[in-house]
Parts: sequence; C-alpha cells; structure tokens
Amino acid sequence: MSIPSNYLTASECIRLVAEDKLTVEQIALDHLARYDERDSVVHAWAFVNRDLVLSEAKKLDALPKEKRGPLHGAVLGVKDMINLPTQHNSPIYKDHRPNVDAGVVAICRAAGALIFGKTHTTEFASTAEGPPACNPYDPRRTPGGSSSGSGVAVSDYQCSFAFGTQTGGSTIRPGSFNGIYAFKPTWGAITREGLKIYSISLDTLGLFTRSIEDLKLLAKVFRLEDDIPPPTVPKPLSECRFAYVKTDQWDAESGASPELISAWERSAKLLKSAGAEVVDIELPPSFDKIFPDIGRWMMDGEARASFLPEYITSKDSLAPYLQGHVENKTKITRKMQLQGYDELAALRPIIDKIAGEYDAIVTPSVPGEAPLGIGHTGSARLCAMWTALQVPCINIPGFASENGMPIGLTLVAPRYEDQRLLSVAGEVAKAWIGTDDDKLNNIPAPKDAVHLKV
Amino acid sequence: MSIPSNYLTASECIRLVAEDKLTVEQIALDHLARYDERDSVVHAWAFVNRDLVLSEAKKLDALPKEKRGPLHGAVLGVKDMINLPTQHNSPIYKDHRPNVDAGVVAICRAAGALIFGKTHTTEFASTAEGPPACNPYDPRRTPGGSSSGSGVAVSDYQCSFAFGTQTGGSTIRPGSFNGIYAFKPTWGAITREGLKIYSISLDTLGLFTRSIEDLKLLAKVFRLEDDIPPPTVPKPLSECRFAYVKTDQWDAESGASPELISAWERSAKLLKSAGAEVVDIELPPSFDKIFPDIGRWMMDGEARASFLPEYITSKDSLAPYLQGHVENKTKITRKMQLQGYDELAALRPIIDKIAGEYDAIVTPSVPGEAPLGIGHTGSARLCAMWTALQVPCINIPGFASENGMPIGLTLVAPRYEDQRLLSVAGEVAKAWIGTDDDKLNNIPAPKDAVHLKV
Repeated sequence: MSIPSNYLTASECIRLVAEDKLTVEQIALDHLARYDERDSVVHAWAFVNRDLVLSEAKKLDALPKEKRGPLHGAVLGVKDMINLPTQHNSPIYKDHRPNVDAGVVAICRAAGALIFGKTHTTEFASTAEGPPACNPYDPRRTPGGSSSGSGVAVSDYQCSFAFGTQTGGSTIRPGSFNGIYAFKPTWGAITREGLKIYSISLDTLGLFTRSIEDLKLLAKVFRLEDDIPPPTVPKPLSECRFAYVKTDQWDAESGASPELISAWERSAKLLKSAGAEVVDIELPPSFDKIFPDIGRWMMDGEARASFLPEYITSKDSLAPYLQGHVENKTKITRKMQLQGYDELAALRPIIDKIAGEYDAIVTPSVPGEAPLGIGHTGSARLCAMWTALQVPCINIPGFASENGMPIGLTLVAPRYEDQRLLSVAGEVAKAWIGTDDDKLNNIPAPKDAVHLKV
Repeated sequence: MSIPSNYLTASECIRLVAEDKLTVEQIALDHLARYDERDSVVHAWAFVNRDLVLSEAKKLDALPKEKRGPLHGAVLGVKDMINLPTQHNSPIYKDHRPNVDAGVVAICRAAGALIFGKTHTTEFASTAEGPPACNPYDPRRTPGGSSSGSGVAVSDYQCSFAFGTQTGGSTIRPGSFNGIYAFKPTWGAITREGLKIYSISLDTLGLFTRSIEDLKLLAKVFRLEDDIPPPTVPKPLSECRFAYVKTDQWDAESGASPELISAWERSAKLLKSAGAEVVDIELPPSFDKIFPDIGRWMMDGEARASFLPEYITSKDSLAPYLQGHVENKTKITRKMQLQGYDELAALRPIIDKIAGEYDAIVTPSVPGEAPLGIGHTGSARLCAMWTALQVPCINIPGFASENGMPIGLTLVAPRYEDQRLLSVAGEVAKAWIGTDDDKLNNIPAPKDAVHLKV
C-alpha cells in the first residue's frame, strides 16, 4: 500500500479486502494510527476501545468470504446518541451501556462494518454548547453540530463513514463545515430504533462519507428503494434541470454570507458549463413560516415529552435549555404544536410536486464557512426547513471560503426519491468537485489528506 | 385490611400507604399471592422476579415521606416491548436486558411505582399469533392483543395499572375484552423512548387501570396538559352533548355484533337518562378509507424499515408475517405510503373540529365480546381509525354479552384534549357502570373480584 487505508473511501477498502490486497486488521491499524495522531487536535471521539477495534477486525478477517457482508472493510463511527455504549454527552447517562445495538448499528455490523467508536455530540443532540470536537480544517473553528464528532471523524480520515442525526440541521451543517458528503434520507426511511428521541417528527438518521459511491452502497444496505429505481447509468447533466431555491432565510439577518454567494454563483456556472439547465425559483410564501416558527412549534412541543424522564429523574444534570423544553419556556401551546403538524403536513405534498419537476432542488446548506469558536455549532436556518418537510437532502462539498474553509450546497428531492437523488448527486459532485487532478484541488483538505472522491 | 390490597385501585393503595394503614411490602405480598393463585390460569406475565419485587417494595417503605412520589403504593405491569428486561416475545431478544428504563418506566419508578414485571405481548406487538395470556372472564377466550398480558394483569387484580401500546387497537381492544379502562393518549403526548418501534406514526403508549381516578393520576404524572385545563368540578352529564359515531366498519362483515348493538343502545339510554344530549352523526366519507387501506399503507410502509435490523441479523427467528413487512409482501408503494401520511394528516384537523363540537365522540371499541380461542387476538377494525388520527381515546367498560363477557365503548376527543376527555370519561363511567351497589353488578367480574371503580 502506497497510502494508508484510512485515506481510502469505504468502497475502496471493501474492494481491496475482497481482492486480498488489504486486511481489516491493517485497516483498523491505519485508522487507529490516524486517531492517535489527530484526536488530541480534533477531538472527534467520545469513546474508542482500541483492543475491541482490533479484536473485531481480526474476527472479520477470519470470516470465510462467503459469509462476508457488503460493508466488509468499512470503518464506522457512531454518534454518541445512537445505541452502542452510549452517553449522549450527558452525565445522566454516564454509565449507560445498552447491550443491544441500535437498528442501524445492527444492520451495519451484520453487513461487516468495523465499529470504531462513538463520536462526540452536543448534549442530547441539542443546540446546547458544542462538545470538544473541532474543525479539522481549522481547529479554532466549530465542526458544526450536533453530529460534530461524526463530521470530524470522516473529514479527518479517522473512519470511512459515520452516523449522525438531524433534527434541524445537525447532519447537513457538519457536512458543509467539514467538507464531506452528508445525507439525510427521507424521514422514516431508515429505522430510528435506538436513537435517543428529541423530536419524533424531525429526528432522522444522517450519513457522512467521503464519496457518493459510499452513500450509494449504504443506501443499498439500508434498502432505500424508490418506487421507480434510478437509471443504471446516471442521467448526464446535459439532460438535467435544477431549481435554485435561496429560501426566505437567504436575505435574513445572518443569512447568506459572501462566501455562500460566491459558491452559489460558481455552482450554477459549473452546472451550466456541464450543459444543465438552471432555473431560479421561489417557493410559495407558505414555506416562509417554517423557519423559525412552525418547525420550532412542532419540535419544542415534542421535546416537552421527550425530556420528561431525564427531567423527573435527574433535573440538575440536564442542561437548562433542555429543562426549558419540559417547562415549556418557549410557551408553545398545544394549538401551536398542532398547527405545526398540520401546516407542515400540508406543505409536504406541495414540495414533492415542486421538487419533482426538476432533477433536484439546489439550496444552501449553511449561511457560510464554519464560524470561529467551538462553543456554538452554527446556524440551521438554511437547512431546517427541509428536515421539517421530511424530504431527502445531500450536502455536496466542493467550494471554499477565502479562509480556506469548505462550503457545500444541498440537493433536495421529493420524499422517497432517495435513490434518484443519490444518482443525480453523483453527477453534480463531478461538476462541482471535479474528477481531474487539477480540479480536485479547488478545496483544500485537512492535514495530510488526499482528495474527496466523487 | 378486610380486603387484600390487590383488589384496590392504585389511588386507594396510595392513600392507605400515605395514611400508614398499609405498607408497600404488604401490597407486594398481596399482588404476589394473586399472581401465584392465578398465573397458571391466565398467564399474564412474561417475567416476574418476586425477590426483586419484594426488595423494591421494602426500599419504597424505607423512603422518608417527604421523598415519596405521587405513585407511591401503585403496582405497575409493563408490556414486554417496553424497556426494562424486555423480550418482545421474540427469540431474537431472549437475552435482551437493556439496563436503562424506557422513559415511561423511569418516570413511574421515580414517582414511586412498584414495578411488578413484564406482561405478555404478541411477537413485536404485531397481529401475529397471541401469547399464552388468556381472558380472566373466560380462559378459553382471548384477552385481546397485542397488549394482552397488560389487560389481563389489571383486570385480574395482579397489578394496579399497566402499560400497553397501540398501533391499531392494541390498547382499546384488551380494555374492552377484559372489562377495564384503557386510555390511548394523543400520539406523541407521552415519550415513546424505549418502546420497540413498529410504526412510528401510529405506535402510542397505552394505560390500563381499574379506575378513572387512576388514569387522572397518571395523566398528571405524565404531564398531559391541555391548553385549557378541564374544570375542577367535572361538567355534569346534564350539560353534555355526545356524538355517536358508528364508523363505516359498523355495517362491514364482522362489524357490529348483537352484543355491541345492545351495549350501544343501552349506553345512549343511560346517557339520556342522566340528562345528556345524544346525537347520531356520520363522519364525512373521506374517513371511510382509513381502515383498512390508508392506515395500513402508512403502517406497512413504516414497518418495512422497522424490522430490517431483525430481518438482517436473525431472519429465521422472525415471524413470517414480520418478514413479510421487510419484503413488502403487501406491495405498498412509496406513493401509497405518502398518500397515507398526507391524507391522514389532512383528516386530523377535521376530526379535531368535529370532536370539538361535542363533549366527546362515543364510538365502538370492538365488534363484540372476546372471541373463543387465544390464537387470534381479535379485530382492530372499529378502533384503528382513531389511532391513525392520533386523537386520544378511552375504553369505558360497563356492558356485557349474554355470555357474561365484558364490552366497552370508546370516548374520543380532539388531539391534546386528553385532560378534558378524562374529565368527561369520569362522568360517563358513572352513568354506564354505576356507583350504587345495585348498579355495580351490571357486569360480572373475574373470579374473586370486586367492582370496577369510577
């Protein structure tokens, strides 16, 4: 191996292991070496048991080929609010060691993935204070949240893929800030068994990878089947049509930054150069109320029930912000909560119809580059709407600020067109990130890193 | 004590303990005696650890009074799909011993409830084969499902209250078959953390008790707060107006039985005698499609993701019916699933408005008495619609078939008017069950049993 395996994608490792050119043990050693080198800088992990990682790797190597699963050779990081020894970054759950995997962990473990450890999250994946994780492109900056450590671990080549979750923008935001792919599938398409509940109508498992090929592999493992399977050969961009949607938050205070505006314009130019049609559209005004009002009414209303057990048993160990949910500090009436449910439900078929008229909607992931400081994980104002609409979203990296920080943009499709979205995303990524060596450098990479794969 | 404490309601036990007239240890001993006497007949329990029950009871007795919670003296049975040592009646989870309580268990434990054990359920709370539990009124008959053991344990005086769940009719049906109160609150009003997921949009925690007072106490513990609190003194029936809704399933094959028709007519007569206004209404035809189609599209679509982990890891140990969910045997397209979401979402504010014009909707719980045989747990055709609509429902017992089997009827209110519904239910129960000794005998009771309390 000329290059340590932690710099490869999951799919590349899986292929090399299948061809007997690499062992899972070597993969584990490479990732542990990177972890040793970098964890004191970027603090991605809440829990790694190196002996367990190595012994599991050896077990995987000992498995006869016919018993190996589709993820054999991939290394998984799991957000510390998804069952597996899980602590939610809350003192209440300090000794919480559930002995049954979350559904998604069970699926990936059975498919042969090597579970590397638990990644840092904000307390209960809330918007509370950030965890110690910091941005691999600039450790003075936040990696985003709440799936902070998952974004860092994948970006920093410490695992090949990772689980996050998204209630507002907790997958898309770290995707953009850390310069990696971040996929929030249709709400409900992947089981949430074993994920701590914040808002039952919003929480969605998120996936982080360094390649679209890896996302496609995971979508297959999780059986994300559209009614109409996407074409075997992806539709070329020259036949594609994209709707550019700035959303009502673009012009808001702390809305679009200069670096977002620059990425936005460049992205459209690149798509047009590839022959695609790009159309600026505005959503009907009824979508304007989702952030910050309607979505928040639903979320806060649901969080009132979600944190009652911790509030009753261990109030003093619960962040004041989360105590506030139970105490209904934001004064969300049941009427407002129901209005949230009903208005959002009415908007979902409308966005399906609008998005269905294009190959994808292109929309911002975040207002701009990752802000300085790790106390605050950044704003979800530009991506929370899509979570509430329950549509699939992917952050595609490919742009950078003047400070050399990554910026991505989001592609959106109608609900349950996850596979089609991934197919389109692969072609868009080629245009934005490039596939030639000279284009691959249009965004910088974390220390020692090689390029993102399309 | 002239009467063993297991025949008392939770509230009665709590009061006696507070007055130093009863110890939790004595309560535990009384319940264990009943369990010893009856479990070989009715098979309510999947797991009871008598040493643990007794040692926990002694701990509760040792607690200084100022540290005691509002459920101190109550005895809880937990459906075996809610975390606590949990097996889901599936061999896959035989040794599953999660070491963190489900949210609802944590809340009740902190409130001082004595956890008695885990009650039998159908496999993963599905409509698959019934568990060994049988009806305390006639062991040849089903107690209903999937919350079979919970219904039995409360009806048979083996615990004072129990948790079930409802995805179709799994709380209301055992409530009716076992002659007890069964309350399915508004979807989302109580945390589902630690409840195995079947259908995320349908699954709801259910509560079984032998008194409305106990339900009111639990509603307080779970903080089921309406926007407008119900009146301190419940509104008298003479000022109430009830909408009688047969639903489209009344006239369907296997719809209303003669015993249901008789209960229906008698119930209206009793309400009218108490001075209430009773109006027969028909719901708009758009509600007719919910059962069996639209609700099922949503449920089957969601179950496809819910059982994938077990399917991947342990397919052979999973009931064929549940394997079928993952394999999408019912051929639910994503389009149908989304239609399920969107049509139901549109109907919810409509039913809120209709129900809001009355003090409650009165509607059947089940087609009739508990059928013979314990293999099949009965039909949800008359109650599943309300689960899909996410409105709060209560089964009020009070009627009986010629075979002496109990039949209840359901009261329904708009979403998040749970407290108001409980307030009305108390008055309705007085009319249906009666409060005078001569009226209390209008339904029979399980062996050795005393009466239901209003």
